[in-house]
Amino acid sequence: MTQRIDHTLRGSWTSAPASEAHLPPHALRWLRARTGLGAAITPEAPGSVLAVSDSRLAPDARTALAEVVGDAQVLVDREARLGRAGGLSYVDLMRRRGAGELAIPDAVVLPADPEQVQRVLETCVEHDVAVVPFGGGTSVVGGVNALRGTKSAVIALDLVRLDQLVSVDPVSRTAVFRAGVRAPDAERLLAAHGVTLGHFPQSFERATLGGFAVTRSSGQASAGYGRFEEMVVGVRMATPQGEMRLGGVPASAAGPDLKRLVIGSEGLFGVVTELTLRVRPVPRVKHYEGFVLDGWERGADAVRALAQSRTLADITRLSDVDETEVSFELSGGWKVKGLKAYLRARGISQPCMLILGWEVGSPRELATRRAAALHKLRRFRPVGLGRALGETWRKGRFGGPRQRDVLLDVGVCVETLETAATWSNLTALRTAVKGALVDSLGTAGSRPVVMCHISHAYETGASLYFTTLAPRSAEDPLGQWQRAKVAACEAIVGHSGTISHHHAVGVDHAPWLGAEIGDLGLEVLRAVKQRLDPTGVLNPGKLVGDAEPRP
Amino acid sequence: MTQRIDHTLRGSWTSAPASEAHLPPHALRWLRARTGLGAAITPEAPGSVLAVSDSRLAPDARTALAEVVGDAQVLVDREARLGRAGGLSYVDLMRRRGAGELAIPDAVVLPADPEQVQRVLETCVEHDVAVVPFGGGTSVVGGVNALRGTKSAVIALDLVRLDQLVSVDPVSRTAVFRAGVRAPDAERLLAAHGVTLGHFPQSFERATLGGFAVTRSSGQASAGYGRFEEMVVGVRMATPQGEMRLGGVPASAAGPDLKRLVIGSEGLFGVVTELTLRVRPVPRVKHYEGFVLDGWERGADAVRALAQSRTLADITRLSDVDETEVSFELSGGWKVKGLKAYLRARGISQPCMLILGWEVGSPRELATRRAAALHKLRRFRPVGLGRALGETWRKGRFGGPRQRDVLLDVGVCVETLETAATWSNLTALRTAVKGALVDSLGTAGSRPVVMCHISHAYETGASLYFTTLAPRSAEDPLGQWQRAKVAACEAIVGHSGTISHHHAVGVDHAPWLGAEIGDLGLEVLRAVKQRLDPTGVLNPGKLVGDAEPRP
Repeated sequence: MTQRIDHTLRGSWTSAPASEAHLPPHALRWLRARTGLGAAITPEAPGSVLAVSDSRLAPDARTALAEVVGDAQVLVDREARLGRAGGLSYVDLMRRRGAGELAIPDAVVLPADPEQVQRVLETCVEHDVAVVPFGGGTSVVGGVNALRGTKSAVIALDLVRLDQLVSVDPVSRTAVFRAGVRAPDAERLLAAHGVTLGHFPQSFERATLGGFAVTRSSGQASAGYGRFEEMVVGVRMATPQGEMRLGGVPASAAGPDLKRLVIGSEGLFGVVTELTLRVRPVPRVKHYEGFVLDGWERGADAVRALAQSRTLADITRLSDVDETEVSFELSGGWKVKGLKAYLRARGISQPCMLILGWEVGSPRELATRRAAALHKLRRFRPVGLGRALGETWRKGRFGGPRQRDVLLDVGVCVETLETAATWSNLTALRTAVKGALVDSLGTAGSRPVVMCHISHAYETGASLYFTTLAPRSAEDPLGQWQRAKVAACEAIVGHSGTISHHHAVGVDHAPWLGAEIGDLGLEVLRAVKQRLDPTGVLNPGKLVGDAEPRP
Repeated sequence: MTQRIDHTLRGSWTSAPASEAHLPPHALRWLRARTGLGAAITPEAPGSVLAVSDSRLAPDARTALAEVVGDAQVLVDREARLGRAGGLSYVDLMRRRGAGELAIPDAVVLPADPEQVQRVLETCVEHDVAVVPFGGGTSVVGGVNALRGTKSAVIALDLVRLDQLVSVDPVSRTAVFRAGVRAPDAERLLAAHGVTLGHFPQSFERATLGGFAVTRSSGQASAGYGRFEEMVVGVRMATPQGEMRLGGVPASAAGPDLKRLVIGSEGLFGVVTELTLRVRPVPRVKHYEGFVLDGWERGADAVRALAQSRTLADITRLSDVDETEVSFELSGGWKVKGLKAYLRARGISQPCMLILGWEVGSPRELATRRAAALHKLRRFRPVGLGRALGETWRKGRFGGPRQRDVLLDVGVCVETLETAATWSNLTALRTAVKGALVDSLGTAGSRPVVMCHISHAYETGASLYFTTLAPRSAEDPLGQWQRAKVAACEAIVGHSGTISHHHAVGVDHAPWLGAEIGDLGLEVLRAVKQRLDPTGVLNPGKLVGDAEPRP
């Protein structure tokens, strides 16, 4: 594992093969024709043009932090600070391209272990310095933006050195990790023990285990492995008032599950330093395949039938007509006209792609589970497109962030947002959000594409994940998206959706959290924060949206 | 549904057929020989001998409460108050038999709906009266004991009139219930819609849905249907600071899951008035069968293999050698000697009974799931005892509380306690708790029986449920058990078990909660309580064990 990370100014994955970040000419042609996108190329500005003000960290605070972590682990250079200036939302990426101002930490502090994290927090309280816990930096909701709140300085507390697998219990199938371990490293370390977490969100290549916990992450295979919160057996958290250790047993009725108060707390209550996680044997058989169903309603009914009969594949993902079309057109590997003709001949006029993927222990298990799923699917008349489509999706499944950078280069406003609702509410919610986005993203002569998919299905409902492609406003690129985001969030809370199914709250969703949990719910979160972080040093402005501590 | 309930002084289920509450002579003979139990019969004292002090509820408070719920719904008669004086723990039952003092509410208040519950709370705050929310009254940890704390009076807020099924959403498979609905009524109401909750704890016949939520209940079929907390989609709670409505979506990342703070809150933060619950189709096929495995270790390994391969039956229950012996001896339906000889001939010297039960939609599903489970079981060399054993268990599965009353009559100290731990820790924990109970329960010439079973298994661990049978100390019946309970709880926290897997904390486990969640965890709970119940009217003395509000 690396001790230092390469946070380049570019938002994309640094390990990306160049070929994957390429937009084929035919795809660009299609995009221009479909959305009205102009021909201008707007490449990323060099990082050197970005304004970075001097560090405001007071010398005595810097000295005190260096006493905890060592002088070499308190970084105030431009590159280190810019590298932790926000996450990967469209707005963050556009700020890195010179639109609007980045919130840049005054220093980056790199503790080595949970004890140092605890002492860093105590030092920050003593010197009244704000602390933004920083893992993989993949937040798309402003969760790691270095806001100072009412403090005069803010540090990024980067957990990259908390990169150890502490222990594995093969009998109980649990593993103890430090919170700064990145997902690929976790999988590599676990593979030596023949086990896996099975948590594969799109941020997989860079995100950390601690980040997964505090944002209530959900992976692409969560139908099989569960949401990240369901894997957390125990948690250790440093707070300004001391350390908490919660959980450790498979189930309990010893009062409310306080683990669940830490999970999703987005760095407001403390810094998660260690996690005990459930693991499973590495699957020996992986099988992905693609189907097409006729129309969104039928597709959603099919996924519901799978979820409610508990025959979901480990990966179950339904794209709507727009997303299916874009997938076919942008992938480049498909003869789209021929495919559409074939589908029409099979009775499908509104193609919606369904990817099913199983990751299991044996061919026997695959056969049993696949048969049960296809048995349930049959009455929805799916057309099988075979394993190639499934494999195409699987290979590209972490490529979204890379493709986004390329789209930004050609002038696209590209962003995602997501929600979840009960099945009976899902279609109305989807219509409302899609309408809000199309209406608000449009500029003169442009035709935005708003795609949607279900990536996570439950017995009582499902998530909806929207991706927008629109010609970017040259005059007001941030405002264009921010207005669309407001319209979408209003549609979500107006139609009983959750403000986030797996992206968390951060800064961007904070104005709508009250609509979901009520003013009293916000007050409960503030009461907990007040108890654990009375001076309000931790992650100001996130989750409950307070920039200043309450009395 | 009944508007009033028959809370007799006797702890047993009022609807019990007399035949089920009978201890056959051969069973009593065996019990006497095995434990050293004497021949004295100690029947329950008539309720009329119990001391019931006058109600301390001030007239103005009573008038104010009557203004909210109506005069007829504020009860101060002896029978009503005695009927809500505690739950069904051994200590509670012994107090009803004249050993020690009952905590009796000063009045019983019966609100009609969530709005009245809200106004009752506000009235109690205004008049500084303590409130004990009361559902089925089946707590075995002192959770509904009518403690006054620092208040001059205490009411039992009985939710029996909140007995409605509000709505069913057949598409999303959810149902909205008022919190006072009893489990059998819930099942009857849902059956009309072809669905079920599938929640069958031993308290099923009397417990309420609200009680299940606030105690984090787990049912006998929780391997199939999940713990109750996993069924809760949404919750509505009245608090002295106003109403909270939480949840409603299948999954979310909108901050910490505050539903989970309500679940397990044991009436300290508010009164749950309404629940949105996941439902499933009524199973069309039920199949129970019994097996015997040789020795606890092998049995536990077998259950672990089922849990970790996710092939658990919906009901999976492993008894240790002592519990298996008692089951055979007390059931009366078995020719025990012949059975033991048969098992010995099959190579089983330490018989441990394993009950597997499936409740599924079709014979096909039963065949698939049963085959998968038996495939996993094979290497543990189970001896099948067929469906009769399974059916015997199923028919008697709610009979424990009734049988307990009969055992109390013949002078037995009979009580249960439970915990959970990771698989690697389970055997050491079981040995420690069993040893602590045997050592501390013994009196001169007696040989206590301590039985144990696993009733809930998870990928990372399992629950342990202990039942004790010991000759009751004539001099100090409460002290005998209370010392044993302390010894068992110390063994649990000393061996990394949870202080409760599904009985909750109440009064009895409050001294050990800090060992599990830390002092800071207790402080977080107190901070939430302080915010929602600043004057501390709600359920004093429970969960965090505070008898008085904190500053």
